[in-house]
Amino acid sequence: MTLTVDLARYLAERREAVDQALDRALPSADRYPKTIHESMRYSVFAGGKRLRPILVIAGAEAAGGSMAEVMPTACAMELVHTYSLIHDDLPAMDDDDFRRGRPTNHKVFGEAVAILAGDALLTLAFRLIAENCAANGRDPSLLRDVLIEIADAAGTEGMIGGQVVDLESEGQKVLPETLEYIHTHKTQALIRASLRAGALLMNAPSRVLAPLTRAAECLGLAFQIVDDILDVEGSLEQLGKSAGSDQRKQKATYPEIFGLEVSKLRARELAEEAKAALAMIGPRVEPLVLLADFIVERKS
Amino acid sequence: MTLTVDLARYLAERREAVDQALDRALPSADRYPKTIHESMRYSVFAGGKRLRPILVIAGAEAAGGSMAEVMPTACAMELVHTYSLIHDDLPAMDDDDFRRGRPTNHKVFGEAVAILAGDALLTLAFRLIAENCAANGRDPSLLRDVLIEIADAAGTEGMIGGQVVDLESEGQKVLPETLEYIHTHKTQALIRASLRAGALLMNAPSRVLAPLTRAAECLGLAFQIVDDILDVEGSLEQLGKSAGSDQRKQKATYPEIFGLEVSKLRARELAEEAKAALAMIGPRVEPLVLLADFIVERKS
Repeated sequence: MTLTVDLARYLAERREAVDQALDRALPSADRYPKTIHESMRYSVFAGGKRLRPILVIAGAEAAGGSMAEVMPTACAMELVHTYSLIHDDLPAMDDDDFRRGRPTNHKVFGEAVAILAGDALLTLAFRLIAENCAANGRDPSLLRDVLIEIADAAGTEGMIGGQVVDLESEGQKVLPETLEYIHTHKTQALIRASLRAGALLMNAPSRVLAPLTRAAECLGLAFQIVDDILDVEGSLEQLGKSAGSDQRKQKATYPEIFGLEVSKLRARELAEEAKAALAMIGPRVEPLVLLADFIVERKS
Repeated sequence: MTLTVDLARYLAERREAVDQALDRALPSADRYPKTIHESMRYSVFAGGKRLRPILVIAGAEAAGGSMAEVMPTACAMELVHTYSLIHDDLPAMDDDDFRRGRPTNHKVFGEAVAILAGDALLTLAFRLIAENCAANGRDPSLLRDVLIEIADAAGTEGMIGGQVVDLESEGQKVLPETLEYIHTHKTQALIRASLRAGALLMNAPSRVLAPLTRAAECLGLAFQIVDDILDVEGSLEQLGKSAGSDQRKQKATYPEIFGLEVSKLRARELAEEAKAALAMIGPRVEPLVLLADFIVERKS
């Protein structure tokens, strides 16, 4: 198929719309008690790529829906992602002082507020998903399916499970299947749920949902492999954190186990597999096809 | 009205049913990754009174519903409560080593797992609420209302807001209105949402919902005032934590600001006000009438 979408513009438009919606969804920074709202906003507006919200939107578009119909859930996925970063950065966890070139939440607001800000973002995320159902006027039972989808992706069968195994694997010799578990749970699960949630909210038929799910799994894994590669190759300027931080923390990574060349090849293969799955859906998924290459070729 | 319910039996039956439902709802302790599931179960099965689940059930009963119809949401409220205790006990927060006579979660599983166990319980709570709607076969739009009710009660407009102000008030001279804010948000909000959620799920009319809400507000505040009183008067054996711990941590409490006698009087007044509100509903709320006295007279 001939691609007609300008990806940079597609991403910029959606990122801007998501940022505006997040600004409306979050309590204002001067609302009592101020500290917690400042802390939540500090991390949400720290310059993220908004990949997960954009995937929710792209999932809705793939099923014939529009950005406006899934915006609350798109914002919710960014809040779930942000809460996980705040908690991951805590001294008891990865103990990171910087994130995206800025001091981490607990370095600015203290550990107690950082823990509570994460809790509050997770709580607000579920509120936004509940609101989505009211807003788009579709069958409210879809809300139940989407909630369960996202809760499972974020819980101990998903992201939290991945984080636990990641923590327990630090400094250990990690088997390839353990690394696979960490990557598919810690990163892929939420990316998969994002794309699926958008499509589910639009009541996508399985001829759309099945290939979309396969594409999401490939993109989610590719995204994490590229993250691992960038940690070895990237510079502080590009990443906003020191390159090589995974190695210093003795984190299990793809390049560590399979080498850089095999890792790059695998990421490329996954992008092609995602594109093959997407080709079964049709022209509505053009942005996702371009996004597959973008995820593999990105430098930060 | 003549009271015919045996409260001890009423509570014991519901507590047992809630415990069984919680056991089914939580991933088993040997499920991979084991640590997180052990940690979640450790705190959920630490001998709580199950007050919040029982209030969800009583709220449903007040609206003509049954325990089975709201059990997932009843369990969800206990998980929200338990997550908040695990996070509150962390060194960065209240730094408590014991809770209900046992070492706190982070003393057993470490801080990282304790943070993640709290996150996972909150996540699972929202999944259970979503499941409830499917289970009771009522209008799925009720699910949206209940979700928003509970998310607001648990978030920065509710419990988390109360915890932030509580932390920021430690060691400060606290005004009566600040103490009121802490108590109504940190404790009352979740108790209010519990009773309301049960009634909302049964589509309670406002002639039931309004007095039930008023009763819940009185009971929630009374519960916290009695907690403050017990912290001054109780023994380690009864409370499972050292009496006087609020004072050691320079926590703002009701007896600290108003004295013990005024505090006891206020708790009693609130119980009577709750009972007056409940009298407007009818015989279905008998257990709640008895519970009002129980909350004020309890010794632990």
